[in-house]
Amino acid sequence: MKILDLYSKMKGDLNEIEQELIRSASNEQELLNEASLHLVKAGGKRLRPVFVLLSGKFGDYDLQVLKKVAVPLEMIHMSSLVHDDVIDDAGTRRGQVTVNSKWDNRIAMYTGDFIFGKALKIAAELQNPVIHQYLSKAMLQMTIGEMEQIRDFFNTEQNVRHYLLRIRRKTALLIAICCLLGALAANADRNTAFRLYRYGYNVGMAFQIRDDLLDLLGTEKQLGKPPGSDIRQGNITLPVICALRQDGVREPLLKEIEAIRDSNGGADTKRAIELIRSSAGIDEADRLADRFIAKALEALDGVPAIPAKKHLTDIAYFVNKRNY
Amino acid sequence: MKILDLYSKMKGDLNEIEQELIRSASNEQELLNEASLHLVKAGGKRLRPVFVLLSGKFGDYDLQVLKKVAVPLEMIHMSSLVHDDVIDDAGTRRGQVTVNSKWDNRIAMYTGDFIFGKALKIAAELQNPVIHQYLSKAMLQMTIGEMEQIRDFFNTEQNVRHYLLRIRRKTALLIAICCLLGALAANADRNTAFRLYRYGYNVGMAFQIRDDLLDLLGTEKQLGKPPGSDIRQGNITLPVICALRQDGVREPLLKEIEAIRDSNGGADTKRAIELIRSSAGIDEADRLADRFIAKALEALDGVPAIPAKKHLTDIAYFVNKRNY
Repeated sequence: MKILDLYSKMKGDLNEIEQELIRSASNEQELLNEASLHLVKAGGKRLRPVFVLLSGKFGDYDLQVLKKVAVPLEMIHMSSLVHDDVIDDAGTRRGQVTVNSKWDNRIAMYTGDFIFGKALKIAAELQNPVIHQYLSKAMLQMTIGEMEQIRDFFNTEQNVRHYLLRIRRKTALLIAICCLLGALAANADRNTAFRLYRYGYNVGMAFQIRDDLLDLLGTEKQLGKPPGSDIRQGNITLPVICALRQDGVREPLLKEIEAIRDSNGGADTKRAIELIRSSAGIDEADRLADRFIAKALEALDGVPAIPAKKHLTDIAYFVNKRNY
Repeated sequence: MKILDLYSKMKGDLNEIEQELIRSASNEQELLNEASLHLVKAGGKRLRPVFVLLSGKFGDYDLQVLKKVAVPLEMIHMSSLVHDDVIDDAGTRRGQVTVNSKWDNRIAMYTGDFIFGKALKIAAELQNPVIHQYLSKAMLQMTIGEMEQIRDFFNTEQNVRHYLLRIRRKTALLIAICCLLGALAANADRNTAFRLYRYGYNVGMAFQIRDDLLDLLGTEKQLGKPPGSDIRQGNITLPVICALRQDGVREPLLKEIEAIRDSNGGADTKRAIELIRSSAGIDEADRLADRFIAKALEALDGVPAIPAKKHLTDIAYFVNKRNY
């Protein structure tokens, strides 16, 4: 099944999630209300709710229960995005103007805090301590991951392990937790739930690697922002780490990265991007993403053969698609 | 009993809270660890843990249980302070250099996120959904209060009701929740718990009014920062609102505030402060704080006459003391 067909099949339930997101973001404080709704309405693939709902199919699927897991998880994701956009001084995301750029950094910080607080409020209605434990774990690890990213800005000596640990925290863990909590909230059996966790973790790793590749290989139209924004802000991603190991690429690339760093983001990144694009780093990152997807599919092997299993398989292939 | 005697009497338990705060802020990410520990070690009166512990005395006092309420509540407070310092561009707090000034705004934002996430993680161990509900409520209302403060910056047309609603959210609610959750975690009876909530709410209101008065009347040594920082950033507090209602003060004060606003915080605030100090606004704010303290003591009337009742009474008088 094509991904668009899957979305259209899930349309009713996803619409209900969307309504709940809008309802949850709404509040009586005018400015906060506007900024929060702007954030929700800027959209996104709602991949995290999709993972929650599909994982819920492995137990007693109840949208009213799963909603209370899916909505907070998407909101945790959104609140981390709005804080990241402050850090990155991003003007647009997915082609939409960001909260920090439409208003300012202060509004964006409090909007993130508010959306996060609302996520907790909804999760608190579930009265299941396991869910609270995983939500706070997700939040903590994401924050540590973001701090590691700041620490590692322009650090050209970092290795692949460094990078993988960072994206594990930044991205993969939340997706793994979406799958796990969707399954647990539906009372799926524990073995299935933890296989779905492993699936989500590996899909999440591949997802971030592909996202980092796209930032180097995509067009401005595709990205909704100029390519190379990672390297411009000093975020050294997998293809760059690999390119830096390559003789003949390392020295000129180091010089370019140094120039970008010293210019405080003002330097031209064109030459750096060319060097990376023509290096073996692209292929290496490509292969690593493939390996994570293979592991995700392996984790799915042991779960019951219901339609949701096929859908999760389709998503794994979709996430791994080369859009560049 | 003098407040210092009370702190010395509670020293053992407060030390254990302090150790737990340090343990909870510690983490493997070097930069985050340093910034978080800096935040914890910058100190504070630990008023919120004191309220939790004293309220716990009205039930089955168990430090191990109360700790898991007191530590998250103090951490929620700390995380809001570190985010506020970003907004206010504050260089010092309580005479200590702030996280945003020692490192930068990005580190401060993620440190706040991390401390907040840790607060939840600890609270999640309690497995009591009521506690989660109140924690998320506190967080949400605090954020709305902060946003209202931003919205109302330099708004000289706001009234007393506006101000009271804002400080209710910003300060009073969290203190009320400290008292409530301390009592509930110790299984105190519901009537007592909600009387303590009302006590905490009213003490919190008085506390913020006194704090706002101190910012106008205190010395730089007392404040750990130059006086008048509220008006410099456009935060129109109760004495100012009252002063603006006074003939002969209103017009010159409006001009001064306008000049401060137009200078982007660069203007001299001396004349504005003099105008407010010599206005009736100081007395009016003073009297309102007294009224909240009277209400706090009234709420205490109906709780069992144990030593903690006397201690809470002492704290109410202490909070209301004129330090200027």
